[in-house]
Amino acid sequence: MYTLIIGNKNYSSWSLRPWLALRATGIAFTEQKLGFFTEEFSRKVGAVSPAGLVPVLLDDDFAVWDSLAICEYVAERHPDAGLWPKDAKARARARSLVAQMHSGFGAMRNALPMNIEAHLPGIKLPEAAQQDISRLQAIWHDTRAEFGQGGPFLFGAFSIADAFFAPVVSRFTTYGIAAAGAVRDYMDAVLALPAMQDWMRDARAEATFVPEDEPYRKHR
Amino acid sequence: MYTLIIGNKNYSSWSLRPWLALRATGIAFTEQKLGFFTEEFSRKVGAVSPAGLVPVLLDDDFAVWDSLAICEYVAERHPDAGLWPKDAKARARARSLVAQMHSGFGAMRNALPMNIEAHLPGIKLPEAAQQDISRLQAIWHDTRAEFGQGGPFLFGAFSIADAFFAPVVSRFTTYGIAAAGAVRDYMDAVLALPAMQDWMRDARAEATFVPEDEPYRKHR
Repeated sequence: MYTLIIGNKNYSSWSLRPWLALRATGIAFTEQKLGFFTEEFSRKVGAVSPAGLVPVLLDDDFAVWDSLAICEYVAERHPDAGLWPKDAKARARARSLVAQMHSGFGAMRNALPMNIEAHLPGIKLPEAAQQDISRLQAIWHDTRAEFGQGGPFLFGAFSIADAFFAPVVSRFTTYGIAAAGAVRDYMDAVLALPAMQDWMRDARAEATFVPEDEPYRKHR
Repeated sequence: MYTLIIGNKNYSSWSLRPWLALRATGIAFTEQKLGFFTEEFSRKVGAVSPAGLVPVLLDDDFAVWDSLAICEYVAERHPDAGLWPKDAKARARARSLVAQMHSGFGAMRNALPMNIEAHLPGIKLPEAAQQDISRLQAIWHDTRAEFGQGGPFLFGAFSIADAFFAPVVSRFTTYGIAAAGAVRDYMDAVLALPAMQDWMRDARAEATFVPEDEPYRKHR
């Protein structure tokens, strides 16, 4: 049985990735949520992962950590869930994009932390963050054009690639980043996923305020 | 036919990962080396990858970018090459470690850039870099103890996990990081790989000096 350890749903972009991948493809799991910067978080995460970070997937008592390694593990164990695109080249491209998201776009990540319940349009962005935003929108546009036949997601049907970009879609929504055409349509498809709606509803209901994740607000 | 586009062998830790994975498991490829911060680099990498970074694998004319996505692509296409551990749990753990390396250890990476031909012991390290070093050594020690039966590498036989940590082994060698016991033995096993020896020999023969990758030296 799977247990997925996650952080605050309002803030934890890394937790959202595997949670969405599992939930959107109907793979059953129990969620264990731990608040960021709490003693419980350090103790419980530290007990199962030397990285000390969420998300962590427990398969019975075996721990798999890191959002990407969790997705690969689950994809391997549930080959019929469609977590990766079926076509080999589409799958390779999906892995390129996921890996690029996994290690990159640091300027955007720093400037626009995920904050689902907030609405913070008009923040002045560093040039590097603006470049990241343009690159991300170009990736969505070009991938939809090349691989997106057969559905509204990057590779047509929902895949791990969408799970990895869902937190970015949420950031762009919170900070009111302009989007049109295929980019807007893609964002709307992600936001309309029932699993994404569930996560966002839970995030809004948390009513937590973590100062370390709030560069722009003093309170909720 | 595979072409692997890489950067300077002396500096490009991300290029070393897939190069070593391919070479150490006997998968044939042509190498295309492009010097960092050259016009040729920007032009040729930009033509095949929107990320604009090395490494890029060309499978005929299909581009796969990012060191991890390349390794997954090749592992999928060459299931008998042993790129991932065969046991499912060992493979999951290998992916956790690789993903952790892929997105983490930033303090160590910044303080100790890969620089194969240099010897720079005794540099004063920030506390965060020292913590990263301790965590990496603990990962090597503990993984060897849990999964390392049957060979000198993290999971016994050579795998993608070793390819991902090989640049770290090189950094620790360049900067004279103290290592003993199982950690020292593991580092020696990586350094003794014929493929690693080939890469290091080529790195020393380059005779390039890239100021952007040299926080500690004025010349070679």
